[in-house]
Amino acid sequence: MARALALAARALGNSWPNPAVGCVIVRDGAVVGEGWTAPGGRPHAETQALDAAGAKASGATAYVSLEPCAHHGLTPPCADAMERAGIARCVIATGDPDPRVAGRGIARLRDAGIAVEVGLMADEASALNEGFFTRIARGRPWLTLKLASSLDGRIALGSGVSRWITGPEARGFVHGLRARHDAVMIGAGTARADDPTLDVREGHQTPRQPVRIVADSTLSLPLTGRLAATARHQPLWLLHGPGVARDRAQVFGDIGVELLGVPTGEGGVLDLVAAMGALGARGLTRVLCEGGGQLAAGLIRSGLVDELILMTSGKVIGGDGIPAVAAMGATDLGAVPRFVPIEHRQLGPDLMSRWRPAT
Amino acid sequence: MARALALAARALGNSWPNPAVGCVIVRDGAVVGEGWTAPGGRPHAETQALDAAGAKASGATAYVSLEPCAHHGLTPPCADAMERAGIARCVIATGDPDPRVAGRGIARLRDAGIAVEVGLMADEASALNEGFFTRIARGRPWLTLKLASSLDGRIALGSGVSRWITGPEARGFVHGLRARHDAVMIGAGTARADDPTLDVREGHQTPRQPVRIVADSTLSLPLTGRLAATARHQPLWLLHGPGVARDRAQVFGDIGVELLGVPTGEGGVLDLVAAMGALGARGLTRVLCEGGGQLAAGLIRSGLVDELILMTSGKVIGGDGIPAVAAMGATDLGAVPRFVPIEHRQLGPDLMSRWRPAT
Ligand SMILES: NC(=O)c1ccc[n+]([C@@H]2O[C@H](COP(=O)([O-])OP(=O)(O)OC[C@H]3O[C@@H](n4cnc5c(N)ncnc54)[C@H](OP(=O)(O)O)[C@@H]3O)[C@@H](O)[C@H]2O)c1
Ligand SMILES: NC(=O)c1ccc[n+]([C@@H]2O[C@H](COP(=O)([O-])OP(=O)(O)OC[C@H]3O[C@@H](n4cnc5c(N)ncnc54)[C@H](OP(=O)(O)O)[C@@H]3O)[C@@H](O)[C@H]2O)c1
Repeated sequence: MARALALAARALGNSWPNPAVGCVIVRDGAVVGEGWTAPGGRPHAETQALDAAGAKASGATAYVSLEPCAHHGLTPPCADAMERAGIARCVIATGDPDPRVAGRGIARLRDAGIAVEVGLMADEASALNEGFFTRIARGRPWLTLKLASSLDGRIALGSGVSRWITGPEARGFVHGLRARHDAVMIGAGTARADDPTLDVREGHQTPRQPVRIVADSTLSLPLTGRLAATARHQPLWLLHGPGVARDRAQVFGDIGVELLGVPTGEGGVLDLVAAMGALGARGLTRVLCEGGGQLAAGLIRSGLVDELILMTSGKVIGGDGIPAVAAMGATDLGAVPRFVPIEHRQLGPDLMSRWRPAT
Repeated sequence: MARALALAARALGNSWPNPAVGCVIVRDGAVVGEGWTAPGGRPHAETQALDAAGAKASGATAYVSLEPCAHHGLTPPCADAMERAGIARCVIATGDPDPRVAGRGIARLRDAGIAVEVGLMADEASALNEGFFTRIARGRPWLTLKLASSLDGRIALGSGVSRWITGPEARGFVHGLRARHDAVMIGAGTARADDPTLDVREGHQTPRQPVRIVADSTLSLPLTGRLAATARHQPLWLLHGPGVARDRAQVFGDIGVELLGVPTGEGGVLDLVAAMGALGARGLTRVLCEGGGQLAAGLIRSGLVDELILMTSGKVIGGDGIPAVAAMGATDLGAVPRFVPIEHRQLGPDLMSRWRPAT
């Protein structure tokens, strides 16, 4: 099962809208087939593993990181394929909460006379599926917020320059993060200041570049920038508010940008809870937000941050730099948003720490 | 020698103006006497160890963390005491750069027919003596800057409230830091906002409470505050600028406060290089600065911070909180002050990281 989970992890960031699944088929103590969800979510892990095993699947045990599907979607049900291949026993890490599956995959396997066991390495499987499960349970993608700040909590000089606060090791780590997320999101301020490309590079590879998302209420993104220029090569979605000019929307559509309209909340900025809901409805399971300070503040205040990754550089910028998290109007230290550390380590000259919301 | 160094460490923060020294006397493979510098710097470690050993010191080996003194100060030279006690061999971790000693202690021992070896655990001894050596070499105390900040680099709410950003474990750690420093220093802004006591408590004990120092150019410290009220029980020194009112200085003198006049530099604030020089001249070897943001910025800009200790809390305050380091006018990310991490670990719900200036 550890192997099945490791295979599943390879599909993280690439399998959306489907979950990342791994499957290992074992007969007489030997692995006869392996598979993981293909980029775009199809073919499924089970299909690929069964194909690899061929006739050797007969009488074998299948280890799957997630309950096999039982419904006719764009692919035939994996439970049926297992039956046809003659799988004798199926060990499943965790059930699939998707209402179209939710126990029906297991029932179908049992009906077919396959011995089913559920729960081996269930915690690891849940952690792996946090994106997919969050979308099913809460209707929105899992959100990781990454902040690369100076030792004193600044993400840029007062002038807006942020290249580079952290070193190459931390930047490489961020490209690995991008590869394991379905999409990378930034605020319109960062799009304007940095003109970034938001692709996976720096020694990391991915079969499917992440979707780029910009929170841009007024569709202010410059058409001459790198994001707009590459919209046909790597998906670019703009979250915008009501009342944007029709011709502006038209131009973006023409260059291949997808527009997602979202209501505005207090202060006229995008309602971020609604925005995350729209991203979930559009199929995303894992979104990495890379700032800037205003978008970070909005997401934290709205309780939308599932994991916060802080890169702390040894550089000191001072209080006239741009804050990692913009003003939140806090008046009571007992009531501010709070996170607990779950990991910390050194990355070259920087420190990387991971935090989860305190419950 | 490891034992001698551990004993010396007990005297850190208490031995000033003298160095913290440890001494172990060994005869026939057994420890016959131990000592470390007494609070206030006297009696010396060697004297105490020799006293404890008594007649057993004859023919024994003495392990000393620092070269024994050779000059007649307020105590007779330790080198002479070793000779009288009949020490046969003396192992010294590192020489004493104090011009009154600087090799003369070793020469005197050799003249007395004692076999001398120098350099055992020299690196550890240098690290232990960083305060004393800094004062000898640079005429100022070693400076540790501690910042307890929110995850986003804030040391207080916009209103000035900073109790509490970090948890009890981090606060306990800070009391341990205070105990190992000769003095604790803050800016006048923190004195006004927090009205702190700056003593060693929270389960930590010290034979000698640290000196409290406030950078207070205009002698604005409220006479009704906790610092002024306790000046007779725990030393309080005010670093002030030129031209303070004579009667104000008189009042502070009357309540037991020591005043150290320092020239002002650009912007009319105290010249911090001169201030640190004054503290060195006054005998301090290790100073812990606990903020606030303006004093921290001044010390960092002046290149005076020898070690920076960052406590990172999981609380998020937002950009309207008070920055851990005030404005520094940085315009080039390649030229800002830079530190490298030397240690990091979790303290309860917070992360503690130690940083040294990049060279
Ligand atoms: N070191 C790093 O890791 C890092 C990362 C990112 C950015 N940065 C730096 O951060 C700076 C930009 O940060 P920033 O704070 O100015 O801008 P930002 O957070 O990137 O973008 C803020 C903008 O996003 C749009 N937005 C839409 N809905 C929002 C909502 N609900 N909440 C917040 N924003 C919403 C708003 O523009 P509209 O009204 O136009 O929609 C808002 O002005 C740049 O200097 C950049 O270099 C550094
Ligand atoms: N979380 C924490 O660990 C922590 C620690 C400390 C403070 N704090 C918070 O920080 C806030 C106070 O910070 P702050 O930045 O306002 O004040 P600060 O740095 O404590 O004090 C600044 C004052 O120190 C005096 N000073 C003299 N020479 C100076 C120099 N060369 N450079 C800088 N200052 C010099 C100046 O006052 P004069 O002109 O009157 O001399 C200056 O206004 C409070 O809210 C406090 O609660 C938090």
